[in-house]
Amino acid sequence: MTDNQQERVATVVTAVMDRIREVIVEHKVTYDEYAAAKQYAIALGEAGEWPLFGDVFFESTVERVDSEGREGSAGAIEGPYYIPDSPLLERPYVMPMRDDEPGDVLIFSGTVCGADGTPLADAQIEMWHSDNDGTYSGIPYPDDRQLPPPFNLRGRFTTDENGRFEVRTIIPVPYEIPKGGPTGALLRAAGWHAFRPAHLHCITSAPGYASLTSQLYFDEDPYIDSDIASAVKPELTLQLTKHDDAADLAARGLDRPYFSTSYEFRLPRA
Amino acid sequence: MTDNQQERVATVVTAVMDRIREVIVEHKVTYDEYAAAKQYAIALGEAGEWPLFGDVFFESTVERVDSEGREGSAGAIEGPYYIPDSPLLERPYVMPMRDDEPGDVLIFSGTVCGADGTPLADAQIEMWHSDNDGTYSGIPYPDDRQLPPPFNLRGRFTTDENGRFEVRTIIPVPYEIPKGGPTGALLRAAGWHAFRPAHLHCITSAPGYASLTSQLYFDEDPYIDSDIASAVKPELTLQLTKHDDAADLAARGLDRPYFSTSYEFRLPRA
Repeated sequence: MTDNQQERVATVVTAVMDRIREVIVEHKVTYDEYAAAKQYAIALGEAGEWPLFGDVFFESTVERVDSEGREGSAGAIEGPYYIPDSPLLERPYVMPMRDDEPGDVLIFSGTVCGADGTPLADAQIEMWHSDNDGTYSGIPYPDDRQLPPPFNLRGRFTTDENGRFEVRTIIPVPYEIPKGGPTGALLRAAGWHAFRPAHLHCITSAPGYASLTSQLYFDEDPYIDSDIASAVKPELTLQLTKHDDAADLAARGLDRPYFSTSYEFRLPRA
Repeated sequence: MTDNQQERVATVVTAVMDRIREVIVEHKVTYDEYAAAKQYAIALGEAGEWPLFGDVFFESTVERVDSEGREGSAGAIEGPYYIPDSPLLERPYVMPMRDDEPGDVLIFSGTVCGADGTPLADAQIEMWHSDNDGTYSGIPYPDDRQLPPPFNLRGRFTTDENGRFEVRTIIPVPYEIPKGGPTGALLRAAGWHAFRPAHLHCITSAPGYASLTSQLYFDEDPYIDSDIASAVKPELTLQLTKHDDAADLAARGLDRPYFSTSYEFRLPRA
């Protein structure tokens, strides 16, 4: 522990404690409420939910600080459901999914560029998102929901020589964070819902650039303004366009309307 | 859970979370520091130290809020070392102690009154404090220190017909809060000492009045301005007077100088 590290701990811990003391004074927190808060901290630990609690309520703020002033596109928290080594897709890109995968079809396209707008060929996008039930593949959920097959809706694909990509998948849906433990109990006690708005996770990378972690939202999502994880950013919020032209559908081999949206990932230099 | 309770939880929890988020932004808390904070919360729980951590860093603020606007003398936190049913003393009052109890002799005298200053006869003072090593009797300390006999320096006594009392004891000393676990690790990481200034604990009560919990400090204590529990109040800080007149000492049966101080306890109405 250097003197600088010690000063940093003292400064930040004092700031947190002083702000909490301000709240106790301003809101006249009672002895009973203080006792309940101590019991709640103990219960969070016993349930193993400190990581969940922290990531739901504070990680998005840490991410904003971390990415402040960084060049390129806005970043996002990775979230707890990333799994490495997902399948490498072949063109035309279709995310791994079941034959009868429920949900609206989404054609997601765009470009990967450097921060200055130069398109990057052979950049890699690693994408993962929930299914139409709000469930991620490969995650041991505590309830008895139906689990998708391994690597369902998880895949890696690359940009073409113009830095472009297009991938077919389904539109994810809003889902609730785990609410069976003390974190869920707090949500109920405060009268808060447990939903995150639907989102696509992407980690985009290219040689010579820092990788970029994104979460892409949809502007008509019912939870777009009340994400329980407070992670939505306007510049990461996309508009969906509906397509139902019969010739277009036939050309794409689709028997139902589809939606499309696009995004330009701009990577910071390494 | 009524709507009012739900609103209270939402308001106070939001306030605490927003203030912590402010600190993250203002002090540019990093991902590594955020990860360390989560690990620290987990470690506090595993060590069973949430009550200690809370009581050291936040209880004094809760107590100030709780006693705000209450009539009578300033109150104090009870602290973790109270034990009920201590011996009822007989006049002249001498606190239970060993024959060779180390420490300077203290004659503590004063009055118990109502909030309006009316002296209260037969009011009871329940007093407890540390010995000259900073150790309380009856407490299972985690280290291998020498433990005093049961109820050493713990006793109850009453005021006379004029509301007056006088008790002989020894002067307690500053002592360190338990520092073998994560709470102590934080103190070291922040470069903070672990001391509370010396103090007498008293719970004073009388029929028709609310009981009053006090901690009485001494103004020349080296930790009077840096109590790790932030519980010192100027109106609870006493001056010691030294006495070394031979006749006085002889009259009191003392073979060494003694110190005296006094305090007027004013009880709020029940």
